[in-house]
Amino acid sequence: MSTTLLTNAWVLTLDEALTEYNPGWVQIDGSTITALGSGAPPSVPGAEIIDCGGDVVMPGMVNAHCHMGMSVFRGLAEDVDDRLYRYILPLERKFVTADMVRVGTTLSALELIQGGVTTVADMYYFETEVAKVCDQAGLRAIVGQTLADFDPPDHRNFDEGFARVEELTDAYADHPLVTPSIAPHAPYSTGRAVMERIAQWSADHPLVPVQMHLAESTLEVEWARKTHNQSTVAVTRDAGLLKPNLICAHCLQLDDADITMMSEAQVCVATNPRSNGKAGRGIAPVEKLRHAGLPVGIGSDGAMSGNTLDLFSQFAPVSMFAKLLGGSRKPLPAREVVQMATIEGARALSLNLKVGSLEPGKQADLIRVSLAAPRLHPIYDIYSALVFAAMPSDVTHSMVAGRWLMRDRQMQTLDPIKATRDALQIAATFKAEMRQIDRNSTQA
Amino acid sequence: MSTTLLTNAWVLTLDEALTEYNPGWVQIDGSTITALGSGAPPSVPGAEIIDCGGDVVMPGMVNAHCHMGMSVFRGLAEDVDDRLYRYILPLERKFVTADMVRVGTTLSALELIQGGVTTVADMYYFETEVAKVCDQAGLRAIVGQTLADFDPPDHRNFDEGFARVEELTDAYADHPLVTPSIAPHAPYSTGRAVMERIAQWSADHPLVPVQMHLAESTLEVEWARKTHNQSTVAVTRDAGLLKPNLICAHCLQLDDADITMMSEAQVCVATNPRSNGKAGRGIAPVEKLRHAGLPVGIGSDGAMSGNTLDLFSQFAPVSMFAKLLGGSRKPLPAREVVQMATIEGARALSLNLKVGSLEPGKQADLIRVSLAAPRLHPIYDIYSALVFAAMPSDVTHSMVAGRWLMRDRQMQTLDPIKATRDALQIAATFKAEMRQIDRNSTQA
Repeated sequence: MSTTLLTNAWVLTLDEALTEYNPGWVQIDGSTITALGSGAPPSVPGAEIIDCGGDVVMPGMVNAHCHMGMSVFRGLAEDVDDRLYRYILPLERKFVTADMVRVGTTLSALELIQGGVTTVADMYYFETEVAKVCDQAGLRAIVGQTLADFDPPDHRNFDEGFARVEELTDAYADHPLVTPSIAPHAPYSTGRAVMERIAQWSADHPLVPVQMHLAESTLEVEWARKTHNQSTVAVTRDAGLLKPNLICAHCLQLDDADITMMSEAQVCVATNPRSNGKAGRGIAPVEKLRHAGLPVGIGSDGAMSGNTLDLFSQFAPVSMFAKLLGGSRKPLPAREVVQMATIEGARALSLNLKVGSLEPGKQADLIRVSLAAPRLHPIYDIYSALVFAAMPSDVTHSMVAGRWLMRDRQMQTLDPIKATRDALQIAATFKAEMRQIDRNSTQA
Repeated sequence: MSTTLLTNAWVLTLDEALTEYNPGWVQIDGSTITALGSGAPPSVPGAEIIDCGGDVVMPGMVNAHCHMGMSVFRGLAEDVDDRLYRYILPLERKFVTADMVRVGTTLSALELIQGGVTTVADMYYFETEVAKVCDQAGLRAIVGQTLADFDPPDHRNFDEGFARVEELTDAYADHPLVTPSIAPHAPYSTGRAVMERIAQWSADHPLVPVQMHLAESTLEVEWARKTHNQSTVAVTRDAGLLKPNLICAHCLQLDDADITMMSEAQVCVATNPRSNGKAGRGIAPVEKLRHAGLPVGIGSDGAMSGNTLDLFSQFAPVSMFAKLLGGSRKPLPAREVVQMATIEGARALSLNLKVGSLEPGKQADLIRVSLAAPRLHPIYDIYSALVFAAMPSDVTHSMVAGRWLMRDRQMQTLDPIKATRDALQIAATFKAEMRQIDRNSTQA
């Protein structure tokens, strides 16, 4: 088993006490962190020693909500209110195949690794492809097969959808990096009866995470009120889905009763501030949810909505939104934003015993962040520097389970040129189709 | 006079019609853009030809509100509500000297150039130092000597403050890059009588821009109501300061009557979304101001408040805030954000006849933005890619008035190592003083 020693680093452990070692060292044996501390590192014969030159070494970040396959749609029809029905759904129905999902997911995996993310929670279609790409890229992933009633690209009905879920969960039952997941799209696009069926399936598979968009739009709230005379959270609870293995994405349209229900059920939350802000949809009550005891991770959403998949891009928004809601500088201090991006995100995905902090016995999922850029200095508080001044380009190294995915900005498991070129080919097809859609709508 | 030809570029002119040339070229003779177009460039004997490899070439960005000297305070006492009175003002009184301003301004100039900003509107103390640094760095700047009543570090009273203004305006009256400016800190910290005095001075110096924080906080609104029984904008108008040469920073606490007053007076605005959001102060009604005909530029504010000084960091916030206020994806499309960062920002500083777009006869103030990063692709709309996916690290070249300030990320006029080291020395002094302040307050 190989040993790696990272030395001369500003180690942010993100453990319970937010222990820092500066200068500090981290020892990695095989896939595991075995020791860490301050000052001079231990002498380990045969260890590879990497002098980090004072850079930050911290847990890899956890992107708690993503649609990796969608990076081929990045920024498509930006600023257009009806883009979902005008462009996205028609394009998805016509073009989303296993092949497209593989290409989009590969581009996303590349960007996630380059941006400091080592764990991602994904939900989309053809998720066995997502699982394969993440496995090959070496990225830790929760991989959720989506179920929906709007004629999605990979299942004509829920029976077919469940078959895809079973295929995925069977294939990746005991995988070291990939955790299979079931992902009802949203209450309104799943329906109460199917939500009950998923809840039953989930009761038989308690370790399989359930991912769902929840309380994302006013349309969803209206659907719940009209169809069930309840809040969308109450519908979800009564269907039996509000459980500790549920990861609720977005959570914008919540009242206090909803938050109490979620708190009692101990669900988990993934907030997506940039995607929500860009859609003009509103601000999630992140501090209320956290103060109600719910772990809140940070997600990028798909690149079509949030554009970039790193978490640095989400830091200022998640922080500003909390401070604007609170009318003060104080809510959600920078160190808590970094906690949300690491250990709290891991907790939201029920992976906190494995990853999210640098502690002996945990998986060696970590990143090195360069402090070379003048815009980072002076540093009065390292968490403030990470949240408000650091950028994905500052991440130089990324490791998952002891395996280097990026070293000195060089990708170790993926080919950036090929990944980008493949995505551009698909984008050319989309552009042609969009011109056709625009022509048809002009003639109509 | 030397000729430079930038070829094989995706040229975004930001002219009135948003003309793009792709592939395109730009010809620069001396300090001036002399021609540009699409396809093959002209043959100019002796010209230096730079193949841009498909990268974006666009106008350098205009940071419409900054306190360059304050980068030495970057992120100091983040998340602390009373940080202004607890730390900042005592530190400023004790430590802000011409020397400190020179060091802070140098670090800021470095970051601005690295981040794609070629014009900056500054207001702080010891502004002749700021003027010197910008001149040496080759950065275009509006340099505003601040006047305030709270015992600021460089004038004991307004007579001394005016003397500093006169010294600055005399020294830089006809400088090609540096425009001197007078900068009353804010209505509440200047007072009605002195605002009238500044208005008279300004009437005698109509080409000198006036910069002022306006309608930034509820405290200011309360001051105006209590002292003058008016809105803070009305107090400013009645003092004679609402004129087309007034650049109003922040503008958060406005009602429709205020916006009408500002529109009638044709003032200019600098919005600072990240600084305002981080302070929890509120969201500026940017779209209302723009629809009222006011040019709105984008500012970073000082690094103590906004942390980074590039405008990429402001793009998602300014866009999201407009969309959140409007409750839709549609407000403030990406191309308008880029306009605000370039030609509209130049208009807000009354520099739009010189810079802000790439047009024959204008100054050659431009940047080259690499499209190499996978996170930028696919590109369906180049403005969306710039606003929601590009980052300061993508800027490879920066030119002001035909002079390269950065080439292939190499600084041409400033020393990054020295600039950072000098700032860290000052920060060490601040940290010691902050510990003393904390000790004193614990004992008290």
